[in-house]
Amino acid sequence: MKMSEIDLRLDALKNAYQEKTLTPREVVSHLLEKATAYKEHNIFITLLDESDLEPYLSKLEQSDPQSLPMWGVPFVIKDNIDLAGIPTTAACREYTYKAQQSAKVVELLIDAGAIPIGKANMDQFATGLVGTRSPYGVCHNAFDFEMISGGSSSGSAVALALNLCSFSLGTDTAGSGRVPAAFNNLVGLKPTKGLLSSSGLIPAVRSQDVISVFALNAQDAAQVFDVVAQFDEADEFSRELSDLTPPVWNKQPVIGIPDAASLVFDGDKQAQANFEQTVATLRSEGFQLVEVPFADWLDTAKLLYGGAWVAERYVAIEDFIEQHEADMDPTVATIIAGARSLSAADAYKGSYKLQQAQRKTALLWKASGIDCMMTPTTPTIYSIKQLEEQPIEHNSMLGTYTNFMNLLDYAAVAMPTGFRDDQLPCGVTLFAPAGSDKALLQLTDALHGKFVSTSGAKGLPVPAPNSDGFADGRVIPLAVVGAHLSGFPLNQQLIERGATLLEETKTAPKYRFYELNERPILKPGLVKQPEGGESVALEVWAMPKEHLGSFLALIPSPLGLGKVELIDGREVVGFICEPYGIEGAREITETGGWRNWMAQRPQES
Amino acid sequence: MKMSEIDLRLDALKNAYQEKTLTPREVVSHLLEKATAYKEHNIFITLLDESDLEPYLSKLEQSDPQSLPMWGVPFVIKDNIDLAGIPTTAACREYTYKAQQSAKVVELLIDAGAIPIGKANMDQFATGLVGTRSPYGVCHNAFDFEMISGGSSSGSAVALALNLCSFSLGTDTAGSGRVPAAFNNLVGLKPTKGLLSSSGLIPAVRSQDVISVFALNAQDAAQVFDVVAQFDEADEFSRELSDLTPPVWNKQPVIGIPDAASLVFDGDKQAQANFEQTVATLRSEGFQLVEVPFADWLDTAKLLYGGAWVAERYVAIEDFIEQHEADMDPTVATIIAGARSLSAADAYKGSYKLQQAQRKTALLWKASGIDCMMTPTTPTIYSIKQLEEQPIEHNSMLGTYTNFMNLLDYAAVAMPTGFRDDQLPCGVTLFAPAGSDKALLQLTDALHGKFVSTSGAKGLPVPAPNSDGFADGRVIPLAVVGAHLSGFPLNQQLIERGATLLEETKTAPKYRFYELNERPILKPGLVKQPEGGESVALEVWAMPKEHLGSFLALIPSPLGLGKVELIDGREVVGFICEPYGIEGAREITETGGWRNWMAQRPQES
Repeated sequence: MKMSEIDLRLDALKNAYQEKTLTPREVVSHLLEKATAYKEHNIFITLLDESDLEPYLSKLEQSDPQSLPMWGVPFVIKDNIDLAGIPTTAACREYTYKAQQSAKVVELLIDAGAIPIGKANMDQFATGLVGTRSPYGVCHNAFDFEMISGGSSSGSAVALALNLCSFSLGTDTAGSGRVPAAFNNLVGLKPTKGLLSSSGLIPAVRSQDVISVFALNAQDAAQVFDVVAQFDEADEFSRELSDLTPPVWNKQPVIGIPDAASLVFDGDKQAQANFEQTVATLRSEGFQLVEVPFADWLDTAKLLYGGAWVAERYVAIEDFIEQHEADMDPTVATIIAGARSLSAADAYKGSYKLQQAQRKTALLWKASGIDCMMTPTTPTIYSIKQLEEQPIEHNSMLGTYTNFMNLLDYAAVAMPTGFRDDQLPCGVTLFAPAGSDKALLQLTDALHGKFVSTSGAKGLPVPAPNSDGFADGRVIPLAVVGAHLSGFPLNQQLIERGATLLEETKTAPKYRFYELNERPILKPGLVKQPEGGESVALEVWAMPKEHLGSFLALIPSPLGLGKVELIDGREVVGFICEPYGIEGAREITETGGWRNWMAQRPQES
Repeated sequence: MKMSEIDLRLDALKNAYQEKTLTPREVVSHLLEKATAYKEHNIFITLLDESDLEPYLSKLEQSDPQSLPMWGVPFVIKDNIDLAGIPTTAACREYTYKAQQSAKVVELLIDAGAIPIGKANMDQFATGLVGTRSPYGVCHNAFDFEMISGGSSSGSAVALALNLCSFSLGTDTAGSGRVPAAFNNLVGLKPTKGLLSSSGLIPAVRSQDVISVFALNAQDAAQVFDVVAQFDEADEFSRELSDLTPPVWNKQPVIGIPDAASLVFDGDKQAQANFEQTVATLRSEGFQLVEVPFADWLDTAKLLYGGAWVAERYVAIEDFIEQHEADMDPTVATIIAGARSLSAADAYKGSYKLQQAQRKTALLWKASGIDCMMTPTTPTIYSIKQLEEQPIEHNSMLGTYTNFMNLLDYAAVAMPTGFRDDQLPCGVTLFAPAGSDKALLQLTDALHGKFVSTSGAKGLPVPAPNSDGFADGRVIPLAVVGAHLSGFPLNQQLIERGATLLEETKTAPKYRFYELNERPILKPGLVKQPEGGESVALEVWAMPKEHLGSFLALIPSPLGLGKVELIDGREVVGFICEPYGIEGAREITETGGWRNWMAQRPQES
């Protein structure tokens, strides 16, 4: 096997396995060899060896490639997440222990057929956004050896960008899963807090930590998310996706951007130009962009380190730091030790400020009428040398647009938006309320290819958008044919439930259509025929699942909701009519639909 | 007007106003005179005088008694809640300020026609469950002058028990709205956190405070709740009732009680006997009682004072206590000043313990299959003298069953369960997850009269249960006629959505009934007739509103959901059938229903 690049995108790899042009054993052996060649990047703390990998490979070789969703997919794990039998270091030699069992998320991936190939370098105890705070060496950017990789999930991102795995796990408390994505031309999914189990993760800020996913594109990220987003009773911070009911988006999402005065680039003209170009591209693609007064978000970001939350970092390693402060990375030790002087009163004051910020930003969000927000992922990027000169200030600047995300309970996706004049990658982050993970990935999928044609640093193509891959089951398509159509008297019953118009189409040619005798609001009856019949115009609305019941309860007999067959053969929930209702009703099938009939109908006196 | 007792229950008062046998002016004047007579009980910190009351009275006199839900209803306000123009003291002279505007909840009540007559005595800064920690004097029990009233909402409870108002507002962080209810033979509603605005309330433990309602009975409490449970943008802890979706209860609720080993009575045999009798009464009334291992709840209760939450009390009055510690009630000052030594790490450790406790208790709750829990409201009651001897220990004992309630995000209702041998009142608390307020009040309404015949200390009767007054809109009644009936193949679709069987009944005699041709699962079609027809047996299930949509989406054509007319004339959501579906279907109307038909139907080969 040569040192060429394998297309490690999930679907490409699946195809290669299916067509038997590759085997997992070949892939893994190729990747280990390559990883060794990138030794100077300081990507891995532990690279698995052949004997570590043998159990995974032999197990896979006894199963059908199509039996498991992640069959033979190589992935990398940040070294604060446990992999059974392998040391976990959190990038601190003195802290190291051998993991007895894998983290829940790792276990789900392995059960789904994925192959762990290494534990990745990181900012010590996940305290940093830079990738330089590690005794295992500075992790170097995949595009430019002199530049920082971003952190704290530095090795996870660089491994993926250098095509050493198909996806990787990071963690993201303050931006650690997004900043390195931006700096290495990757998609970084920061899932909603609690959707991925934290069992087997070394806490940083326990109340705000999430395990995150680096992927080459949104389709891959969504596939990984589907495998790992499982409720875990054993993790008391775990949440059920089905308990989260974020607002349903418009079909063409309305995207908020920070007001001009809130945009921060630390003087970096190239970063600013990229963001402005991104906004211009979206405008030219027909997206509605809304400027949102963004100061409250930026203020909230400052709470994470300015407030008392750093005491959670202290609690996470209290016994260790009391014994080994001198053994720690000096910057990390300084930050965490600072928590000793924080009082319980400080902690509660911080929590009140956060509660206020949550309310204020939620009201602003609602008032802006947006579906999601878009910001630069970072204001700028630094060289390793610049960073070493101002390790805390520059790190802090990098968290400008990321630190508030978990505090305000958003899901977020970092997306590449092209290359600067200096050929460094650059990106934005899309975010929306908890539970919007799949919606954000779907939007990322639609946009990604408009900005870059390749993922990572090794030229893997960005796939064409695949809107089928993101169904999240939050809405039920609902066909309406009469007084609920746009502009008609009962349309408000849809709007006030958060329903949005999906499409205008018509029924299969199997219906007759009647004006019922009920008053005062005129209503039609749509009646399927045993044979024959015509097509009737209708609108399909996306109704949030949880509100369909209250809508149904409003519908008077003889009407009800059943299944309506559309002209393309799909069946959707829609209005039906009991047989007795059409006795004596006026047939209006030939008008083709309610809107036509209402336009030509004689006034009743 | 004589010093006789007026029936101040809401409906009785409304009737008296409507029949013009009383006016608000007469009622208020009578109450002020009576209140003065009870001076030695130390109920009020500020009793409004005639000039304070004149604006309320003259405004009411210009409006129709039926125009406002609380027209002319006198109420008392705990003195940590603002009433415009009147001093707020929190039972601390040096802290006193004149309120510029009323608390949001007070404003809602006044806007609804209620008349504030006084600001009630309390444990200073709402720190206590006893009613003795006030420079305005010990508040005495309404039944026995030597006994404590309970606190911290002492004056609010005693005022109501002595028939000085129709209801009163307390606050309840650790039990302050339930303990005084138990000690004064009253219903104490501790609403779900966030449903009543805290705007205009002096915080005690900001993250855990709620304004609470003392009422003579559950019907009155529900009426007050409906007026005051309004989302408030300005209170960042405010929550929307509609965002809370607690499980739907069984029609006959399954009630959990603590396992015997967890029951604590501090050696009080009378209290123990009352609780055992209460359990026996419920058993004899046919209720299913389930013993729940209760240690985790009791441990959580200890967090409120044993953990770092007391630092919230410190934050609430930080500036004041730093200047005036010596001016405070010594017990209260000792408790709150203790927070100075608590660290931010302590606060976060406490929050992790709570998160674990929330998970553990939620799993136990689910595993027990209960709808609500019932505990004694307090282990025992103390005399004022006993309390003064051990002010902190006894106070702490009183919180055994109440301190965990807000931490674990329950709604709770304290309900009287009769009198002990020493003629002191005694009670239990019913509680269930956030949003269950109305369900708990409905259960209280059903049970209250089984234990006591009068409310408070002045002999006002407990009304007959009124199950109509508590509809909370969480469920939609759903009529099923075929494969979804109990014991039939698709019944699971109801069960897994948390639906519960409400009743077996039949349709109005207006239907024909068919076996459809679909297979493999046999299904009927219920078809309403323009005239004629028969009754068909059905079951009505209570379907959680938010799950009806996903249920509907499963229903194949020609079936759907519309309205079904029941034999008593009610219309409920239920199965309907499109006309084409019954073409060639076998009519089975004469069998009277699906269960009959399935019992007699010949097997298909």
